[in-house]
Amino acid sequence: MSQTEISQLGEFGLIDRLTNDITIHNKSTLKGVGDDCAVIKAGNSSLITTDMLVEGVHFDLTYVPLKHLGYKSAVVNFSDIYAMNGCPKQITVSLAISKRFTVEHIEELYAGIKLACDIYGVDLIGGDTTTSRSGLIISITCIGEADESQIAYRNGAKNTDLICVSGDLGAAYMGLQLLEREKIASGNDRNFTPDFQGKEYLIERQLKPEARKNIVESLRKENIVPTSMIDISDGLSSELMHICKQSKVGCRIYEDRIPIDYQTAVMAEEFNMNLVTAALNGGEDYELLFTVPLHSHDAVEKIEGVKIIGYITDESLGCAMITRDGGEMVLKAQGWNPLAE
Amino acid sequence: MSQTEISQLGEFGLIDRLTNDITIHNKSTLKGVGDDCAVIKAGNSSLITTDMLVEGVHFDLTYVPLKHLGYKSAVVNFSDIYAMNGCPKQITVSLAISKRFTVEHIEELYAGIKLACDIYGVDLIGGDTTTSRSGLIISITCIGEADESQIAYRNGAKNTDLICVSGDLGAAYMGLQLLEREKIASGNDRNFTPDFQGKEYLIERQLKPEARKNIVESLRKENIVPTSMIDISDGLSSELMHICKQSKVGCRIYEDRIPIDYQTAVMAEEFNMNLVTAALNGGEDYELLFTVPLHSHDAVEKIEGVKIIGYITDESLGCAMITRDGGEMVLKAQGWNPLAE
Repeated sequence: MSQTEISQLGEFGLIDRLTNDITIHNKSTLKGVGDDCAVIKAGNSSLITTDMLVEGVHFDLTYVPLKHLGYKSAVVNFSDIYAMNGCPKQITVSLAISKRFTVEHIEELYAGIKLACDIYGVDLIGGDTTTSRSGLIISITCIGEADESQIAYRNGAKNTDLICVSGDLGAAYMGLQLLEREKIASGNDRNFTPDFQGKEYLIERQLKPEARKNIVESLRKENIVPTSMIDISDGLSSELMHICKQSKVGCRIYEDRIPIDYQTAVMAEEFNMNLVTAALNGGEDYELLFTVPLHSHDAVEKIEGVKIIGYITDESLGCAMITRDGGEMVLKAQGWNPLAE
Repeated sequence: MSQTEISQLGEFGLIDRLTNDITIHNKSTLKGVGDDCAVIKAGNSSLITTDMLVEGVHFDLTYVPLKHLGYKSAVVNFSDIYAMNGCPKQITVSLAISKRFTVEHIEELYAGIKLACDIYGVDLIGGDTTTSRSGLIISITCIGEADESQIAYRNGAKNTDLICVSGDLGAAYMGLQLLEREKIASGNDRNFTPDFQGKEYLIERQLKPEARKNIVESLRKENIVPTSMIDISDGLSSELMHICKQSKVGCRIYEDRIPIDYQTAVMAEEFNMNLVTAALNGGEDYELLFTVPLHSHDAVEKIEGVKIIGYITDESLGCAMITRDGGEMVLKAQGWNPLAE
């Protein structure tokens, strides 16, 4: 494919090329790209979240395709909106780009962002595009909507509430380990073919995660407003402790209730890793962790893809996991810390 | 001053230290820092703008104090909201920080951001903090409010409208030239004292610009809704051409009407630069450029700090400046292009 230097187009030319085919999905988007500001008119409360992704810190372009990176960058922001029990509506995308990227590279990245926007019904309404001295930096801000009475904060969990989690955990982390292993095995050989057979699910969970829109929709259908909710980006253990700390409660979860996919288990064995540790502390699952009152037990159990893994206790009891042998293991926040590297 | 390594605090510790003293100014801010999202409830339309600043591209820390940098980073976003005839209400701040920065450095940067927020009545509601491989990157998103009927887009200028500009132009650009000259003169000597005497205004315009909140307030008082408006970040010429292109009109401005401060003129002479070129193409003025209908002539003339510099014409006449000798000079967009370096 022919490659175009970004300097040939300049800032306005590049923005024009990236945004001239954008379609608007939401009535609340009054004005998108092209003025000093975008204009939106939300009937409800607005939810705001923002994420910054840095090459070499959050992603490695040796094995992450740019289109996947774009898709994931958008989806992780949508996930934060769903984690408030809201619906994502708009995003802005700011990029700092080093000289090694061409117009076609950035178009690939944007193709992923636009695909995510189309699938989740979100409008790309603005951003900023500039030069970086090294690597690629992506900063996305997402705006969502929620009825004020429906918003699920982190601080509403109550004693005896049930702790629920969607999907399964640890797969994205295992996918990352696998990609790193194959990267090392390749030894910079461009013809190297990585071996992902039977592990496609792990790779997909790492490279192309989805946000749990369907869970938020199911909760609404069952008339459940979670007493607290968070998305699992830094690991179950760390997120559960955020909820407990902010809600001033303790918790008990059951090791044998933590949902883990078969491929994750196989991979953990191959890597000789503790499977539960991976599920507790492995990041980037983007599943929803939430609490519901006891009386919602039957309704929440009906929701496909949701599992009850424990319950909220009095704060004095602390946060612990009941192991398979009936023992208690105190939970620790061992999630990824981008500033403690 | 004692310096603390950021890795000692970790991400959550740093965020806590930076945000624990934040005061909320606006009723519309329902929830600030501390959950998956911030929550706001705007009665009017919301305006969204975002800016990314990269060390070595947008700022040079050899002569930009971190507190000034924080202040300016926030203010340039407020300026975009005022440029829509709106009022800034909330910001999110995302930072990528390399290892050479300490907690105290980031506190300095935040002190500037918080000062700007306090002065302009804006709430800091969230953000992201992570590691960069080189230098400092600041990405700020600002959310503002405006009554839908009051919003001034770029595309509403009409034939015979008057072209107005606030303040004076070219000073920030001259300030930058001066800072660069003194940086070279210092030759990395830490005891070097730069000579800014009599040029304080230029330095201030570059390091600590203000957004024109007062002009937006004055326009409201005079019941004027500009037919188009933009803030001057890339130079008068470039911004005026944005308005003309999007409004499908032409324009005539008068060289002798372009507002220029005395210090700017002195500096241009010292540097042997064309003063009008500096005023037309020098960036970072953050003044407001707007158009009003002819019948608003008397009302707009009353506003302190606003000058009528020309008028809108039919598109076929193009964009030109009437020079002092009565000639016509076609306008070109020679503003700064961060991607064409």
